[in-house]
Amino acid sequence: MVTGKTYFRVSYSDTDQMGFMHHSNYFRYYETARWELFRSLGIAYHEIEEEDVILPVINASVKFIKPAFYDQEITVTTLIRSFKGARIVFSYQALNETGEIINEAQITVACVKKSTNKACFPPKRISDTLKELIDK
Amino acid sequence: MVTGKTYFRVSYSDTDQMGFMHHSNYFRYYETARWELFRSLGIAYHEIEEEDVILPVINASVKFIKPAFYDQEITVTTLIRSFKGARIVFSYQALNETGEIINEAQITVACVKKSTNKACFPPKRISDTLKELIDK
Amino acid sequence: MVTGKTYFRVSYSDTDQMGFMHHSNYFRYYETARWELFRSLGIAYHEIEEEDVILPVINASVKFIKPAFYDQEITVTTLIRSFKGARIVFSYQALNETGEIINEAQITVACVKKSTNKACFPPKRISDTLKELIDK
Amino acid sequence: MVTGKTYFRVSYSDTDQMGFMHHSNYFRYYETARWELFRSLGIAYHEIEEEDVILPVINASVKFIKPAFYDQEITVTTLIRSFKGARIVFSYQALNETGEIINEAQITVACVKKSTNKACFPPKRISDTLKELIDK
Repeated sequence: MVTGKTYFRVSYSDTDQMGFMHHSNYFRYYETARWELFRSLGIAYHEIEEEDVILPVINASVKFIKPAFYDQEITVTTLIRSFKGARIVFSYQALNETGEIINEAQITVACVKKSTNKACFPPKRISDTLKELIDK
Repeated sequence: MVTGKTYFRVSYSDTDQMGFMHHSNYFRYYETARWELFRSLGIAYHEIEEEDVILPVINASVKFIKPAFYDQEITVTTLIRSFKGARIVFSYQALNETGEIINEAQITVACVKKSTNKACFPPKRISDTLKELIDK
Repeated sequence: MVTGKTYFRVSYSDTDQMGFMHHSNYFRYYETARWELFRSLGIAYHEIEEEDVILPVINASVKFIKPAFYDQEITVTTLIRSFKGARIVFSYQALNETGEIINEAQITVACVKKSTNKACFPPKRISDTLKELIDK
Repeated sequence: MVTGKTYFRVSYSDTDQMGFMHHSNYFRYYETARWELFRSLGIAYHEIEEEDVILPVINASVKFIKPAFYDQEITVTTLIRSFKGARIVFSYQALNETGEIINEAQITVACVKKSTNKACFPPKRISDTLKELIDK
């Protein structure tokens, strides 16, 4: 199981006039969280792009359970759920400071060759790392 | 069936270094699209908030089919799929300038009393309007 | 004098918990406004980038006079104040629905060759268009 | 002199298709930086708002010297330059990982009573803290 934790503090510009963090920001947080997880595995996302591969989101399913508020520290747990062909599936859980689950998501990214805009296999170094870790 | 079309032009700040519109922006577009649909039904969203009711997103499921690019005009079709109790379910389809479906989503919002932060029924004027239109 | 008007409606995601449009959004609006002005002159910004030229902001000076609120229509008047060497200076004035000036700004962009990241002269077609219009 | 350092990592959603961090994000970073400076002085911004006071930006002057890139760590040094009446002036300097100055700004905020939307003096606790520190 490949998993990691990332911490975010809700910034003022993340809020809207409801007084909540605007829901679109979870997608920004989760994006950062998955590349921080990759970094912890020795893979920097910008290196992937330098090999002409991008990993756009192709699917997202999100439950917004409780609001997040300005200045709260949010803990995001990221898990690589599966990795098959061009697709990597991430699961997320976001907790607020009192340990309540405020958001849960499943987000799928696909490997795409940037120059041709076609689905592709991930660079070998990445697929080797992920396969080895997921099998554990 | 309650449905409406809203048009967006992808702004430069919506793009990321992939050269695509960042996926989080669909949630901003879809939010605007649902309140524009409400406006076309004679309900301005800010009037709902003035009645101490907010409509936060509680669920979203999104398929990112093709990228959107800077300066493209995106047509969003919004449909109110159901309205039961405190919940309103919206379906979305986004098309690019050549008529290709680039994104599909289903987003659920819940009526919440702002002052108590509890689920509630929508203001009567809204529920009457929606019920009448959905039944047609 | 080269001038144009662009209209924006403050979206929900543009607001923050003060209940105002977050001040950072003026820079997004003004960016759209300057390329809409260029479009009205027959120059689409994406065509400039296709010629290996980008126009990043190098200087901004902004007065935030009154808040903008959710759902207000904001009218932005954009003026090309000067164009010398690699630099184009834009002046902006934003008005709310009741005609009050809510924001004023001066923003300078510089022509940069994308491939070399060095300052450059604008593509000839643009400089010809701008020179002719500014002289009028 | 009241000064502090805050660290930001440029997230993917902060970039645009130029491959740079979009310039509007500096205003988000600088906002976080000034409230982190306040936090280091024992004042949490949300406590100010709980006392019916908001601190909107009324003036900003920014030099964009060099681009910031995805995944770079940016160091922001914030300085409280002056504090008179309702106004607090902040100076900022942003450095990239190699120590180059990439951005400089001066941003003025004003104390406003939220319930009346009128300029006001800051809560006594804040003005006492700031006066004592600025005099040093």
